[in-house]
Amino acid sequence: MKRIDWNQLDEPTRAAVLQRPVQAVSNTVRAGVQAVFEAVAERGDDALRDFTARFDGVALEDFEVGADEFARAADAVPADVQAAIAEAAARIEAFHRAGIASPYAVETAPGLTCQRVQRPIRRVGLYVPAGSAPLPSTALMLCVPARLAGCAEVVLCTPPRADGSADPAVLLAARQAPGVRVFKLGGAQAIAAMALGTASVPRCDKLFGPGNAWVDEAKRQAAQRPGGIAIDMPAGPSEVLVIADSGANAAFVAADLLSQAEHGPDSQVLLLTDSDLLLEAVAAEVEAQLTTLPRAAIARRALESSRLVRVRDIEQAIAISNAYAPEHLILAVREPRAWLDRIDSAGSIFLGDWTPEALGDYCSGSNHVLPTGGAARAWSGLSVASFQKAITVQEASRTGIANAGPCAAILAHAEGLQAHARAVELRLEQAA
Amino acid sequence: MKRIDWNQLDEPTRAAVLQRPVQAVSNTVRAGVQAVFEAVAERGDDALRDFTARFDGVALEDFEVGADEFARAADAVPADVQAAIAEAAARIEAFHRAGIASPYAVETAPGLTCQRVQRPIRRVGLYVPAGSAPLPSTALMLCVPARLAGCAEVVLCTPPRADGSADPAVLLAARQAPGVRVFKLGGAQAIAAMALGTASVPRCDKLFGPGNAWVDEAKRQAAQRPGGIAIDMPAGPSEVLVIADSGANAAFVAADLLSQAEHGPDSQVLLLTDSDLLLEAVAAEVEAQLTTLPRAAIARRALESSRLVRVRDIEQAIAISNAYAPEHLILAVREPRAWLDRIDSAGSIFLGDWTPEALGDYCSGSNHVLPTGGAARAWSGLSVASFQKAITVQEASRTGIANAGPCAAILAHAEGLQAHARAVELRLEQAA
Repeated sequence: MKRIDWNQLDEPTRAAVLQRPVQAVSNTVRAGVQAVFEAVAERGDDALRDFTARFDGVALEDFEVGADEFARAADAVPADVQAAIAEAAARIEAFHRAGIASPYAVETAPGLTCQRVQRPIRRVGLYVPAGSAPLPSTALMLCVPARLAGCAEVVLCTPPRADGSADPAVLLAARQAPGVRVFKLGGAQAIAAMALGTASVPRCDKLFGPGNAWVDEAKRQAAQRPGGIAIDMPAGPSEVLVIADSGANAAFVAADLLSQAEHGPDSQVLLLTDSDLLLEAVAAEVEAQLTTLPRAAIARRALESSRLVRVRDIEQAIAISNAYAPEHLILAVREPRAWLDRIDSAGSIFLGDWTPEALGDYCSGSNHVLPTGGAARAWSGLSVASFQKAITVQEASRTGIANAGPCAAILAHAEGLQAHARAVELRLEQAA
Repeated sequence: MKRIDWNQLDEPTRAAVLQRPVQAVSNTVRAGVQAVFEAVAERGDDALRDFTARFDGVALEDFEVGADEFARAADAVPADVQAAIAEAAARIEAFHRAGIASPYAVETAPGLTCQRVQRPIRRVGLYVPAGSAPLPSTALMLCVPARLAGCAEVVLCTPPRADGSADPAVLLAARQAPGVRVFKLGGAQAIAAMALGTASVPRCDKLFGPGNAWVDEAKRQAAQRPGGIAIDMPAGPSEVLVIADSGANAAFVAADLLSQAEHGPDSQVLLLTDSDLLLEAVAAEVEAQLTTLPRAAIARRALESSRLVRVRDIEQAIAISNAYAPEHLILAVREPRAWLDRIDSAGSIFLGDWTPEALGDYCSGSNHVLPTGGAARAWSGLSVASFQKAITVQEASRTGIANAGPCAAILAHAEGLQAHARAVELRLEQAA
């Protein structure tokens, strides 16, 4: 891994170190996704069958997982994995439930009440990738909050396996949203189906979940269409930034860096430390652990664009992290909580030596669908609120309009909007 | 206005009635906005000067409003308007403050705590249009929640007037965000400046505010760029749906329809009523009120695509409204609160005869930046949360990892992510 001494660098070089590999969407992907949308719009399920045959190598007549396949899934998943899915779901539910927004009301003038209420988004579309491995954990992270939000219809797409079935662990996890409809569809065609609707796949109001460059581009194009639907957030390669002091455990830190690097060759991994000793110990541990890692080839490619950075002190590390706005931030320092108020941008934070990022990926209770690529400067990870919308409500009595109406009329006249003023003044005349 | 009997229509015709005028972005606008972004990226402030000369007809050397101009604004705004701005700001603050999310924490397993904390978005960019009239109310709706969120830097762009000054009422309203920096820039060039940054305009993390088709397209293009910034919501023409029963006041209803119609020729206005008498009375009132309306020409064009719809009963009206998902929904019925739980999609709701939409536009306390074009199915209006992001935090002790770690390790193995499993298992060995 490349070693860098932050305080030997000029500003342009510092900026270059924090530069993420640019995820330029190729014209091939953009045009390919457009073609998928056009085909699904024109030929519906027939187009989905063609794409599934071409990209997944499976001929499917019917995409939806039926009761039989759901029932078989329970037999196909080992008991310890079933128990782990249930345990993780319970912890995700406990944390997400506590964050559900409550309606509130304020009397903003005598006789005038304003409220804010929450409503579930009626039909949500979830994408659970399979890529190098199926991800039941992602199904949990989407289905548990969708259920808590009260979404009436939950649609989930996940790519079919070579034999035409869905991954049984994903199906078990999906059951966390009772009544979920699972379709064996992957890639841009899955997103197009949920965005446009077909004879078999319902059109959804908002799309959620991570995916590869094709899925991400398809979500963006779905959001751009006139009358388009909402998406959860822009998705990109996963990333972790670890801040470690001299007391950190080098083996733990190396394991955390590698657990991010194994996600994909475009994952990005940064270590910031004020200790030369720790930096070298982590570098050695990374090499040692790589020798026994099944996905070492992927991890080595990710490490090529990753950095071990020597900083002056933890304060400087925090400033660099805030500028970078990492998806995951691990604070492997002696008093991690003392720094928490200083962190202004990160997707999720892991405090101390005993909190690996992998815990948050699966079962600490927090959501693992998080903003990447610096989006943490303005975006939040998923929560129940992501599956709801808020509506404001106001009600004035005669007293209320008498109290607040004159202010509205003055401002309407100032803006040259006479019909606005009249809607208030007509009532003021009669309320008097 | 066109009269329609809902129960005489077949399904395709019903769908057509609820169809909004398609806001197809012309290739001219798309290419024009692209050119603006390219010019601002290449030539920075020089490009801004050129566009301002061309589109606003003003030669500006410096865009930023200085202390002198702020001071003069106070003298230029009539006292009653100043008082109304202060009164509206106080009510907006009261309502928005009560909705600020609180951090919370849950012990999801013994020794494992998960939290969610809020942080202000550091640098926000606000757009206040001037179009046919400057909109100080929009400056209030953006600046008050930005202040409550604690945003460190607030940048506001608004088009210059013919004499090169900014509208003084907008400046007074902008002062609701202390330290706000106001730039006299309009249109796509204002959005490009805040999205890209120039020598004089800071690059922002998230852009807010309504605008015309050029501004809307510029916000979309800003959000699409690699490493792009966030935007508040897709913007479109304003709209209102009124549900009225036989007891409603026809003059009030007509005034509410017209106050929406005067916004612009693409505004959309719908009345749903179970009363033929009321429907005809409203139609007559609309014509009568139009004769004395200064912006009657604009309103008449909007009314061309608007509808008076006779429905079977209020229940049917609610179902139609939920399918349409209006930006503004007025319930001019006898027991409005009895229907509130049945509304599942709307930007903001106005209950009863004495609550004109204009009250919410200015000073009920709720925000007037709301989802349009059916986006209320999945989006919320602005709130303090729009100017913040949430970060999740987790901390495990040795006990915590011992309790939750095995679940994570099992799921990591099930997903074939051995480095994830190892980051947990290394700690489990040492925690024991």
